[in-house]
Parts: sequence; C-alpha cells; structure tokens
Amino acid sequence: MPLSPRPILALDTGVGASACLCLPDGSVFSATMKTPRAHSRELLPLLQNLLQTHGINWQDLQAFAVSTGPGSFTGLRVACATIAGLNASLHKPVFGLSSLAITALQADTSAPIWAIEDARSGLVYAAQYEKGQCLSAPQCLSWQEFLSLKPSAYISISDVPVALDDWDVLPVELSREQALIQAVSAIPNTAEHALWVEPLYLQVSQAE
Amino acid sequence: MPLSPRPILALDTGVGASACLCLPDGSVFSATMKTPRAHSRELLPLLQNLLQTHGINWQDLQAFAVSTGPGSFTGLRVACATIAGLNASLHKPVFGLSSLAITALQADTSAPIWAIEDARSGLVYAAQYEKGQCLSAPQCLSWQEFLSLKPSAYISISDVPVALDDWDVLPVELSREQALIQAVSAIPNTAEHALWVEPLYLQVSQAE
Repeated sequence: MPLSPRPILALDTGVGASACLCLPDGSVFSATMKTPRAHSRELLPLLQNLLQTHGINWQDLQAFAVSTGPGSFTGLRVACATIAGLNASLHKPVFGLSSLAITALQADTSAPIWAIEDARSGLVYAAQYEKGQCLSAPQCLSWQEFLSLKPSAYISISDVPVALDDWDVLPVELSREQALIQAVSAIPNTAEHALWVEPLYLQVSQAE
Repeated sequence: MPLSPRPILALDTGVGASACLCLPDGSVFSATMKTPRAHSRELLPLLQNLLQTHGINWQDLQAFAVSTGPGSFTGLRVACATIAGLNASLHKPVFGLSSLAITALQADTSAPIWAIEDARSGLVYAAQYEKGQCLSAPQCLSWQEFLSLKPSAYISISDVPVALDDWDVLPVELSREQALIQAVSAIPNTAEHALWVEPLYLQVSQAE
C-alpha cells in the first residue's frame, strides 16, 4: 500500500533540481530548474514557492523524500543537507530515493532495465530495475566490469563515454519530475525512513 | 555595538565542526567534533544537543551564524545547506562569518596578521586582519603571488606546502571554538545578514 495520507515533498538533483508536492486529494504538483548544480539559494526558493503556491506550510507536510544518489554531484550533498536542516525542527519522516531508480522510471518500460550514470575516472554507477523493483542494487563498477555483464537494455541521463554496441539504449520517455512523482507515489507505507538521510557514497573518496 | 539580545547559534567547519550557543545572560557554550569532514548526520546532533542541554528550542534562537569559507571542504557546503534548511521554516537572520577571520582570531594577537589556508593545486587562500578588522579581503592566490607579498606574521590551521622562510609563523593560541565565540560576539548589530548564506567560492571550479 502506498504511503498516505499526504502532503509529501520530494526533491531530486539528478538533472538540475526537481521537486514534487503530493497532496492528500491525490493531486501532484512539480517544479524544476535546470541549473547544472544545486545550491541552497536556488533549492530553497524552489521548494518554498511550490509549497506557497498550494497553500501548504512546512508544518503541514507529512513526510519528505530526497534522492540520495549514487551520483558525483555536489547537488546531492546540498539537497540532503538542506532537507536535513529543514527537518531538524519539523521531525517528519524522510525517505531516501535511489537516483538510479528514478532514472529507470524515466524509461517508462515494464521490461528489466539497467540505469547507469558515468561516475568519471573510468567508473560507472549501475543498478538494474524491473517495474520499479530493484533487481541489482546500485554499485560502482569500472566500465570494463560493466561491459562484462550480459548486454541488456539500459538508460542513462548522462553521456556514456564508452561504446555499448551490444546494448540496447532506451530513450528518456518521462521527464525527471514525472519519474520523481512515480517514485514517490510508489513509496510503501512500510518503507524505512529516518529523520534525515545522507548521500549514498559508493566511492570512498566521495565521503571525504 | 555587538549583536543583542541573543540566543544565537553559530557553526564553523574549519577544523572538524565547532558550534557555539550564545545566551541572553552572556553565557556561551560550545561543542566540537573532530571528524575531518562534516556531514548532516554529525552536524545536526551536535547542534541539537547543544541547544537541548541548555533548554533552547530552535524557535527560541534570535539568529544563526555560519562560517562560509573560503575553504575547499565539502563541510562548508553541508554546513551552509544545513543552516539554510533549518532556517527555511524559522526565518531568523543568518550571518556569514569568514573562515579566515576565525583563523586570525586563533592567533590571539593585536598585531596585523595574515590568515592563510592551503587551497591545493598550488593555490592559497589569504586574508589579512588586525584586531578582528579585515585589512585585505579573502582572495585565492598562487603561492608565488603570496610569496611576493611583504613578509609579515601569519597563521595557518592547515599544513603549508611551501617554505615561508622570511615570514613569522604565529602559533594557534585559541581553540577553534574560542575563536568562533569571539567572532560571534563581535558581530555588530548593523551587520548584513540574509535568510541563508552560501559558501564563499574563490575558485570557479568550486561553485560547480
């Protein structure tokens, strides 16, 4: 059973920054900005405007959701810290979303699909999903390791720096906001949550 | 005239993370942790414990102060974002403090002093202070440029990767918390503030 009642506010920084607000009547509103890196000075007005436009106060929220990565971007850290700060005085449940799971939803397919993202330095973040379920948890592989996997369908929102000749690239069918809304809608009532979540660090150097 | 009435909560991530709480009766309490990088999971309990121990709620605070750099650390971004998030629902004034000004205060001298910090890649952050007043604003220089300045007294809390033979190194006399408390105590009532502050980026690459 999906999470209810709402409102719930969700934030993703996979592509610029996307936020969505899910209201108790089932309506969902989203906002996005295209800046390549998210900073508090842009994130907070995005969130505040989204709430204000729909007459919601911070205290009215039932929960937060935030994508925690994997990813190489400062935006992840800033997003998690912003939500953590917001919630320090609000004490709402915070749900962590996988950035790759959101990417997989953008393919809008019911077949198994790898969601990948270039992690630079010859590495790739990869996870496999089917209908929103995780088949293979996010990991950080060398491109060589990734290429040794059985070729299958994949989606990536970042440029892929190697040739994936035997692989079947799927196009981005849904916007990041649309996929974020789907990811939030699918959070089960029984999902684990915390008072704040941290970015998912798959590379040791990122945690430093 | 210094800022009053209080309480005011200040956070610095120059060395681990230091927080101080200045109360209306003039008493000041501080807390610190030595983790090399600050993350929300460590910062927020540090701040919350400091407030709870002294019976202060988030809503009771009159203002926040946070050191904004310069510095190369994730900690700065996380600290600014955490305070920004905290304050989104609290709407208190937020004062930005210079990390180098705090470093200069650690020398506990009334003579002019350069506060410097290795910025890696052959660069150095440098600013000059006298009795808490800024004589030369924070800038990012090559070590060669810095060495072309008239040798004077300096203090650094990070290792200095070049020989500063003609320079006069001053020892760290005050702890980071003690210097932070001094910096907060000296914030004038007329100081500029915002609802949130951003890290000070002196290198283009840091903003990305």
